[in-house]
Amino acid sequence: MTEAATRKRGRGTGGGAARRAERTAVRIECAPVITREVPDHEPLTEEALSIIEANAETVLQEIGVNVVENPAALALWRDAGADVQGERVRIPKGLARKLCETAPRVFTQHARNPERAVEIGGRNLVLAPVYGPPFVRDQAGGRRYATIADFQKFVKLGYMSKWLHHSGGTVCEPTDIPVSKRHLDMLMAHITLSDKPFMGSVTEPSRARDSVEMCEILFGKQFVAENTVMTSLINVNSPLTFDATMMGALEVYARANQAVILSPFIVGGAMAPVSVAGTLAQVLAEVLAGVAYSQLVRPGAPVIAGAFVTSIDMNSGAPIFGTPETAQITYGAGQLMRRLGLPFRSAGAFCGAKLSDAQAGYESANSLQAGLYAGVNFMLHACGWLEGGLVASPEKFIMDADQLGILHRLAKAIDISENRQAMDAIAEIGPGGHYLGCAHTQANFKDAFWRSDVLDYKPFETWFDEGARDSATLAAARVEKMLADYSPPPLDEGIRDGLNDYVARRKESLPDSFA
Amino acid sequence: MTEAATRKRGRGTGGGAARRAERTAVRIECAPVITREVPDHEPLTEEALSIIEANAETVLQEIGVNVVENPAALALWRDAGADVQGERVRIPKGLARKLCETAPRVFTQHARNPERAVEIGGRNLVLAPVYGPPFVRDQAGGRRYATIADFQKFVKLGYMSKWLHHSGGTVCEPTDIPVSKRHLDMLMAHITLSDKPFMGSVTEPSRARDSVEMCEILFGKQFVAENTVMTSLINVNSPLTFDATMMGALEVYARANQAVILSPFIVGGAMAPVSVAGTLAQVLAEVLAGVAYSQLVRPGAPVIAGAFVTSIDMNSGAPIFGTPETAQITYGAGQLMRRLGLPFRSAGAFCGAKLSDAQAGYESANSLQAGLYAGVNFMLHACGWLEGGLVASPEKFIMDADQLGILHRLAKAIDISENRQAMDAIAEIGPGGHYLGCAHTQANFKDAFWRSDVLDYKPFETWFDEGARDSATLAAARVEKMLADYSPPPLDEGIRDGLNDYVARRKESLPDSFA
Repeated sequence: MTEAATRKRGRGTGGGAARRAERTAVRIECAPVITREVPDHEPLTEEALSIIEANAETVLQEIGVNVVENPAALALWRDAGADVQGERVRIPKGLARKLCETAPRVFTQHARNPERAVEIGGRNLVLAPVYGPPFVRDQAGGRRYATIADFQKFVKLGYMSKWLHHSGGTVCEPTDIPVSKRHLDMLMAHITLSDKPFMGSVTEPSRARDSVEMCEILFGKQFVAENTVMTSLINVNSPLTFDATMMGALEVYARANQAVILSPFIVGGAMAPVSVAGTLAQVLAEVLAGVAYSQLVRPGAPVIAGAFVTSIDMNSGAPIFGTPETAQITYGAGQLMRRLGLPFRSAGAFCGAKLSDAQAGYESANSLQAGLYAGVNFMLHACGWLEGGLVASPEKFIMDADQLGILHRLAKAIDISENRQAMDAIAEIGPGGHYLGCAHTQANFKDAFWRSDVLDYKPFETWFDEGARDSATLAAARVEKMLADYSPPPLDEGIRDGLNDYVARRKESLPDSFA
Repeated sequence: MTEAATRKRGRGTGGGAARRAERTAVRIECAPVITREVPDHEPLTEEALSIIEANAETVLQEIGVNVVENPAALALWRDAGADVQGERVRIPKGLARKLCETAPRVFTQHARNPERAVEIGGRNLVLAPVYGPPFVRDQAGGRRYATIADFQKFVKLGYMSKWLHHSGGTVCEPTDIPVSKRHLDMLMAHITLSDKPFMGSVTEPSRARDSVEMCEILFGKQFVAENTVMTSLINVNSPLTFDATMMGALEVYARANQAVILSPFIVGGAMAPVSVAGTLAQVLAEVLAGVAYSQLVRPGAPVIAGAFVTSIDMNSGAPIFGTPETAQITYGAGQLMRRLGLPFRSAGAFCGAKLSDAQAGYESANSLQAGLYAGVNFMLHACGWLEGGLVASPEKFIMDADQLGILHRLAKAIDISENRQAMDAIAEIGPGGHYLGCAHTQANFKDAFWRSDVLDYKPFETWFDEGARDSATLAAARVEKMLADYSPPPLDEGIRDGLNDYVARRKESLPDSFA
């Protein structure tokens, strides 16, 4: 069944229900992957880059990394030429970088809708939503534990967000489902409620295997064997530690030729030195070791070099966002990853703000701008993040997703076609004239300026008469409207049945566990 | 009197009252002018720049500019070689650029406190507050016409804002004072309530002369003749029109060797073509003509090449801010002005938001980031701007002013000293350790990370117990505290008397006029 279904995947030709769904479906617009046509911001000099690269190699050779509770990984490292003492792996200078060479510089992650496939790496930027919050906050209900209903809501909003390329992974933790089973419901939500690419489970190797098997039902075994259909998030336990759970998931994905984001998780001052240059050396060392390991598992496995970086507030101990030092680390990491030739994951609409208020706006915009000009290739957390990642918010989700349109525009080269030079218009209007209504304006205004779909651009009086609403309140109204307008993308009934069977079978075999 | 007073200016040695004030004054910290140590963002290619420069010259030669109700200016242009027909001035290719060569690339604006002098141009960035709003909005009182009491409040907040270099000009319009007299009260506020540099009046040539004369009392005639003590805002009446009021003020300032910002005022799609490349050609033409004219009035007069740019929302007709196209124009204008060798004014904490909400945060942060990386030398509106510039807000003022600290940090090169490389710390902590409390963290944490003075970094529970306040509410509390803590910088009593005499005399001689 799965093989047959595969050949029809995403084209909605599988059955009567799918055909009906396709006929009635609202056409959902999705902008292509961003291709940066403008220069990156590169604050580190050649000399600084060389120093940091040399320091990373020194860290790997002299300090090494811990590979915890993973004898097979230790054996792979020993065979590759590392000095393994207990769980400490010291990697001779140059070895990790050499091993990284087999990782692809660019790869394509497929989606069940072929139009939604994304090419990751090079000059591209792929945008994916928030990942991981155990709480949600919305205007109506305040802050509370997230549920699978919230999860599904975020997937729907992501599907309808035209600047967002990716459905993400754990857009929030569905805390009403046992941990042992929630990955199945999360995957079903991504697969059935959206047709954008998505991420797999990493909380246990068996859950990674479930993710691969569900993709085999969706895409077909053969297709999955030959193509990347998931990109999953493997955090390094910084500093310099690779734990068995995350590495176990990495091993599953790498063997299945599925992509992982190998990502140091850094709160500067806690998991890394309290300095930009020191943090960058550690991040690079961790990336080198982690990516190299993925290539030991399977040379050529697709991998994204990550850097989740925030800094700590030394007064409160809280992680803080949108700060200049995290931007500097993001810019510097971008330079280092480009030299390494790996796709780069970083940034997001980060904020420490508890509410979708001015603080949320400042911090998120600062982080998004840094991500764009740092040359990020895969931006997780591009929308919906609140309160240091503890909270996902639907209002913040659609406000951020709207702001992503700005990144799409800023990445493009400035058009200097004869039309855009507008010399005829300047001559026509002349000194003291007015361009509103002139032929050039009429011909060009529709796509001349990016326009927010969420923010308020009304005259004061109109805005006041309509209730003087702040942006979070306006966003809440838009969330309601989007969810009311939502209809799912068509899915082959055979595939849906196959997935439902799989999930039911797995749920039956797994204990209810909340750990 | 003025000459004697001058020699003591700003050193607080003039009298008993001043000495007492100095002894009791709170030491107000002010960060030095930003010197950019990182690359600018330059999206325009050499070819694009050449095309736009050629187009600007074509505009000047073939279309020309209007110089309205100003026969003396027309005569100067005719003598310089322009083709003058009626009020239309056509400037042969190359002439305006040639005339611009006598303008200084860098100049110093002095302040009555010598430590507050700012060098404008080169790699520097000077930050000045919002200019021009007729309304204010604060958390307590909502939106209402601005008064001189509001004006004084903003000057005090500006004086106390450590990342802000400049006291600005019309921080709001004191609408309770007749237009004919309000410039006198505005200048008195800047002079007496702050010791940072400030701007002069431009609403009529006689008010510009008042500004110069008040500075002669403050700094001494000789000092003013030899030094720049004001930077004033001369808007071009775009497209391509130079009106008699603004040019009259420019003439007064240029003759007095005082700086002006020659600034096209562009709402793209209305006062300029609905395209980035077209707008840039027009802006450059206007800057070339305006700066050239300042040099015809007095070769060597200090001038800043400005570009106030926003775009229009084609649905509502409202100007919109924080958009990608305005950022592109800002970046492009920066490239063009650097090639012209002139100090560059642009950007600010722009927003269309009516409230200090998420929209305000996103839009303002986007604009501030663009200003930094566009290589702006003088940023007016760097804090306090709301609702497209119709409204000044004290809460927004201090939130923006706080964000300016981020620009200070981002402008600096990343420190790669041995200390900041932190290799000893990485070795000491090793895999799985924790950097909090290690020697390197202890030695470096104080200045390692920029920290907001306004935004909320508290744990959720603390924040919740303290009232779950949004950022505007937190900012309102800080505004109150700052104003309660305010004490004026000491001022020589003789100078103060001289200024009071001058203002009283002028007010007596002027009619009350609100036009």
